[in-house]
Amino acid sequence: MEDYTKMEEKDLPLQLQDVKDAQERIRGHVVRTPLLRTEELDEALGCTMYVKPEMLQVTGAFKARGAFNKVLKLTDEERKRGIIFSSSGNHAAACAYVAKQFGIDAYAVIPEDTPKAKIENCERRGGHVILWDRDYRSRMKKVQDEIAEHGYTLVHGFDDYDVMAGQGTIGLEVLEDCPDLDVIVVPIGGGGLISGISTAIKGIHPETRVIGVQAAACCGYYESKKTGKMERVVTRPTIADGIECTYPTENPFPIVMKRVDEIVTVEEEDIMKACALIGSGAHLVAEPTSSVVVAALLEKKINVRPEDKVCCVLTSGNYDIDQIGSLYQGQMVEAVD
Amino acid sequence: MEDYTKMEEKDLPLQLQDVKDAQERIRGHVVRTPLLRTEELDEALGCTMYVKPEMLQVTGAFKARGAFNKVLKLTDEERKRGIIFSSSGNHAAACAYVAKQFGIDAYAVIPEDTPKAKIENCERRGGHVILWDRDYRSRMKKVQDEIAEHGYTLVHGFDDYDVMAGQGTIGLEVLEDCPDLDVIVVPIGGGGLISGISTAIKGIHPETRVIGVQAAACCGYYESKKTGKMERVVTRPTIADGIECTYPTENPFPIVMKRVDEIVTVEEEDIMKACALIGSGAHLVAEPTSSVVVAALLEKKINVRPEDKVCCVLTSGNYDIDQIGSLYQGQMVEAVD
Repeated sequence: MEDYTKMEEKDLPLQLQDVKDAQERIRGHVVRTPLLRTEELDEALGCTMYVKPEMLQVTGAFKARGAFNKVLKLTDEERKRGIIFSSSGNHAAACAYVAKQFGIDAYAVIPEDTPKAKIENCERRGGHVILWDRDYRSRMKKVQDEIAEHGYTLVHGFDDYDVMAGQGTIGLEVLEDCPDLDVIVVPIGGGGLISGISTAIKGIHPETRVIGVQAAACCGYYESKKTGKMERVVTRPTIADGIECTYPTENPFPIVMKRVDEIVTVEEEDIMKACALIGSGAHLVAEPTSSVVVAALLEKKINVRPEDKVCCVLTSGNYDIDQIGSLYQGQMVEAVD
Repeated sequence: MEDYTKMEEKDLPLQLQDVKDAQERIRGHVVRTPLLRTEELDEALGCTMYVKPEMLQVTGAFKARGAFNKVLKLTDEERKRGIIFSSSGNHAAACAYVAKQFGIDAYAVIPEDTPKAKIENCERRGGHVILWDRDYRSRMKKVQDEIAEHGYTLVHGFDDYDVMAGQGTIGLEVLEDCPDLDVIVVPIGGGGLISGISTAIKGIHPETRVIGVQAAACCGYYESKKTGKMERVVTRPTIADGIECTYPTENPFPIVMKRVDEIVTVEEEDIMKACALIGSGAHLVAEPTSSVVVAALLEKKINVRPEDKVCCVLTSGNYDIDQIGSLYQGQMVEAVD
């Protein structure tokens, strides 16, 4: 394994210009979300609070940014053949949405035990569902077989530079709206989002601290950041099901090591509390995955002062509304594997 | 009583230019909220859906628009003396917020049985609370006495042309973002919001239908629109506590009669259902008052076609989060008087 601390910034495969190019490319296709100053959260979180509400993005999550950037770079021939991905969640919804805009076929290879509602959601958006093993390697093998046979283009949820560049446009927008931001707090699952955002932030205003947050139950990046190596961790189920991370992958890993200042973890009950706090104080429905960033501030996991301008990236809002209701009532919700 | 149907448009005391002037005046003080295209709501509501999310406005409601416009027009001398209002809800929060920005004293004359949480909320924002009779006339008398003694300026929640003009900036922004809007749906309580919005809309694009929505429990404007006269109605408690309306008042009444195309009513259970639908489909926490507009579409009270571009003005998001949780779980919540 390469020692990433010795790597030069300029040698990293994703650069600010890639994110700027993505911004031009996806403009008009995605919502230019506002940066909201959420004063009501200041006291509880101990800083001058802003949120970037990506639940207001098309398909209710930031994922369309990366998917649009990827698909807009495809040739007509590639578009005709279609795209494939292995997700039943927010990335799948975004891919199906983007594909539909261009009349492209979209194929989702997902575990055969995926809840029916998720399958229907993907099909409702026009995606074709291929049910396969839950085992990740077996599923990736199926994706590769499909690509070999039909010539689909893989739109990976995070391990793809074009996808990362698209997600990074969030960082550009945040600095447009608040050029002297002190801290940006970003959830880390596969690492694609924070790779893009940190590339934008460190390229324009390196003084802004970039902090990643993982669920303690499932924190491959947190452990890897300590050792500088790609560590595999033992995981527990987490309610933050959009950022499960057993181990980092090749492409985002060096970017996260170099451009993210700090990674912290949060516990399940704090994620749930944060979800309700976002509802009452910011009037936004955040899914638990999205709430980890607020949980980290609420539990004083990040060192901030009252005058620090801090932006929490709220990634998504797609979750069973009945379960959200339970969280708003202070009831604990079971994380399912 | 004057016959408003015979009144000339140009004779109405609030004109498009007043709203345009308000927009210039309050720019930079309020959030320029986005117009969100909420595709997920299309099917349930039978049209091409947009929402104007004013729960993302400062203090979590549209009210700051009107309060800023009013206070920014005051002389230095008037500002020194302070402002007064009779509200413990969203209008009070907005007035206290605006007053704080300019270092002005703000006095709230509110019923002595106002819930402690609302009193504390007003005080926390720097407002001075004067507890008085619940009876509206007695309370208004107290306000007038205070004004006579101290020279405060009254910032009325709806019966004031400057306040109406400020609220009307919502209409300008919506048409900036969607110039060929077919329908705009607005809650009606005191009528100030819809007076401002309809003035903006009819002044720029009269083809856009302006529809007002009231809770059936408390629908003074609905009954008055039928007869063309200011009718007093018998009311029941409603969960939409921000738009209780026993009878219209002098100033907004002729504007509503002339510029609002139609007024419809919705029932309590439909308001509750709509609140949950806004949470799941738009990822926004709307208070019940705010949800009446979506309830009206959900219950087919407004004649729309799938291709019609319809904007629901979501006015506010300040509500007990535990109660919102109950609504998200499909539980009925009791309206309290």
